[in-house]
Amino acid sequence: MQAISTYQDIITKHFEDLSIKKEPLNLYDPIQYILCLGGKRIRPVLTLMAAEIFDISYTKALSAATAIEVFHNFSLVHDDIMDNAPLRRGNETVHEKWNINTGILSGDAMLILAYQYFENYEPAIFKELAQLFSKTALEVCEGQQYDVDFETRKSVSVSEYLKMIEYKTAVLVGAALKMGAIIAETSTENANLIYEFGLNLGIAFQLQDDYLDAFGNPLTFGKQIGGDIIENKKTYLYIKALEFASEKETTQLQQLYSSHPKDNSPKIETVKNIFNSTGASTATQEAIKEYTLKAFSTLEKIKISEDKKVILKAFGENLMNRNV
Amino acid sequence: MQAISTYQDIITKHFEDLSIKKEPLNLYDPIQYILCLGGKRIRPVLTLMAAEIFDISYTKALSAATAIEVFHNFSLVHDDIMDNAPLRRGNETVHEKWNINTGILSGDAMLILAYQYFENYEPAIFKELAQLFSKTALEVCEGQQYDVDFETRKSVSVSEYLKMIEYKTAVLVGAALKMGAIIAETSTENANLIYEFGLNLGIAFQLQDDYLDAFGNPLTFGKQIGGDIIENKKTYLYIKALEFASEKETTQLQQLYSSHPKDNSPKIETVKNIFNSTGASTATQEAIKEYTLKAFSTLEKIKISEDKKVILKAFGENLMNRNV
Repeated sequence: MQAISTYQDIITKHFEDLSIKKEPLNLYDPIQYILCLGGKRIRPVLTLMAAEIFDISYTKALSAATAIEVFHNFSLVHDDIMDNAPLRRGNETVHEKWNINTGILSGDAMLILAYQYFENYEPAIFKELAQLFSKTALEVCEGQQYDVDFETRKSVSVSEYLKMIEYKTAVLVGAALKMGAIIAETSTENANLIYEFGLNLGIAFQLQDDYLDAFGNPLTFGKQIGGDIIENKKTYLYIKALEFASEKETTQLQQLYSSHPKDNSPKIETVKNIFNSTGASTATQEAIKEYTLKAFSTLEKIKISEDKKVILKAFGENLMNRNV
Repeated sequence: MQAISTYQDIITKHFEDLSIKKEPLNLYDPIQYILCLGGKRIRPVLTLMAAEIFDISYTKALSAATAIEVFHNFSLVHDDIMDNAPLRRGNETVHEKWNINTGILSGDAMLILAYQYFENYEPAIFKELAQLFSKTALEVCEGQQYDVDFETRKSVSVSEYLKMIEYKTAVLVGAALKMGAIIAETSTENANLIYEFGLNLGIAFQLQDDYLDAFGNPLTFGKQIGGDIIENKKTYLYIKALEFASEKETTQLQQLYSSHPKDNSPKIETVKNIFNSTGASTATQEAIKEYTLKAFSTLEKIKISEDKKVILKAFGENLMNRNV
C-alpha cells in the first residue's frame, strides 16, 4: 500500500500522459482540457486503493480508475451546462470556453470513452465492471434529475433528499471502491461491503458539504460561504430547519428562500441563525456522524487485515476533516 | 427467415412492450416518448435479419437490436438540440416538448440504457458487442462533430465529406448487422464482411438522401424538397458542383450559398440547375451506384447460402428504392 498522496500523484501523472488529442480537434480538445483541470481525483484514488487493499497491484486498476474519473468529468461537463455554471475549478467551463453544443457532444464522447477503458480487462471482469458502471451511471443521472426536480418543488422530505445525494454523489464513491475489489477478484461479500463503506462515506461527505457551505471556514472551504443559501437550495440544513421551525421561523425562512436580494449578507446571516436556533445545524452534524460511523462499522465486517482497515479508516477520517 | 415487414412489426411491438416508465418521471418519460415515436426501425431490423442469416433465431438478437435503436434515438435527441430542430417524425422534439436540460439528461440516460441491453449476453459475447458498440458510438460522435465543423468551413473535400457520412450514418448500419453476426457466433470473416456490406450500403443511402433532398419526388420523399439548399448545407451535390463548375457558376453558387432569401423557390431552382449543368447530379448518381455495387460485391464473399444473399440483396435494393 502507498500513501494517499502517492496514489494522487500516480493518477495526476496518468492523466497528464493520457493522450486524448486526436481528430476532430473540436471534439477531443475540450475532453483533454477538462481532464487536465485537476481536482482532487478522490474517486480514481479509491479504485487504486481498493485494489491494493485486496492484494493486487494498483497498476491493474489504473484503467478502471481512469474510466471512473472520465465519467465523473463527463457528469461535470453536462451538469455545468444544466446549471449554467461559468467556472469549474477556477477555470472556464467547457460550454463557456467553447459552446453548449460542444459541451453536449464532448460529454457524450467522454461517457463512451469511459466504457472503453474497461476493455483492458478480460471478458468476465469486463462484464462485471461495465454492469456496475452502467447501474451507477444511470443512478447518477437519476440523482441529477431529482436535484433538478427539487428546485421547483415546494417541499422535499428528508428521505427524498437523502436518496438524491446517494444517487448523485455517493453511489460513484461506492462503485469506485467496488471496482478495485472486482479487479482484485475478492469475495462478492467483501466487494459489497466496501461498496457500502463508500456509499455511506459519500453520503456523510455530501451532508458535510451542505454544512460547510453555511458554516465552513471561508479560508479553507474553497467555495463561497452561503452559496446554497444565495441559490435557495433545499439542502439538508434547510429541510431540517423547516421540520423543526416554529410558525414564525417557517414564514421567515420561506420568505427568505423566495428572495434574491442584491446584497446577500443579511439573508445569509438570518438563515444561518435560523439553522442554529431550530437545531438544524446540530441535526446535520449528527447525521454526518451517523453516516460516518455507519461507514466505519461496515468496514469492520470486511475480511481484510487490521492494518488495511486502519488505512481505509484514516482515509475516511481525512476526507471528513477535508484534509484530502 | 421472415419478411422485412415482419421484423419491423416485431421491433415495433417490442418497443411498445418495453416499459421504461419509472422514477424520476422527468428523466424516463422523454425516453418512452421518443422511443415510441416510431420511425422505420431499419437498424434493429438489420440486427434481427443478420442473426437469422447466420442461422440463429432472431429472438436471441432482440436485446442487441434494442440497444442499437435506443442508441440511434439518443443521437437524435442530442442532435436535435444541437440543430435547434423543432420537429422529429412530425412530432415535437424532446427539448421542445420539455426543455434543453431534459434533452441532455434523458439522452445521457439512453446512452447508458443502450449498454445495459447487452447485459443479457454472456461475458465473451457481451464484451465483443460492447466493444463494437463503443467504437461505433464514438465514430458517430466524431461524424456529428465533422458535420458541425463543416457548417463554418469555407470548403470541404469529397473525401472529408465521405468520411463524415461514413461516421455519422454508415458505421451504425454496419455495426447493426455485425452484432447479429456476433450473436450468431459466425466466423470473424463473415462478421467483418457483413459490416462492410452495411457500411457501403449506409454510404450509398446517405448519398441518395442528399440527391433526393434536391431531386426527389415531393409526394414520396417525406422531407421538404430543397431543405439542404435552404440551409446552405455542403452536401455531396454541392461539393461536386463546385469541383466541376465554371468560374461563373462557382461565383453564382457561392453567392446563393451565403444567402437566406425570404422566398426560397428561385434559389432552389437555380441551385438545382447548377447541380445539373455542372454534372454534379450525374456524379452523385454514379457514386450512389458505386457504393451500392461495392456493398453487393462484398455480399458475394460472405459464406452463406445463395438464398440468404438474395434476401440481403433484396433488402439493399428495397432500401435504395426507398420502399422500406
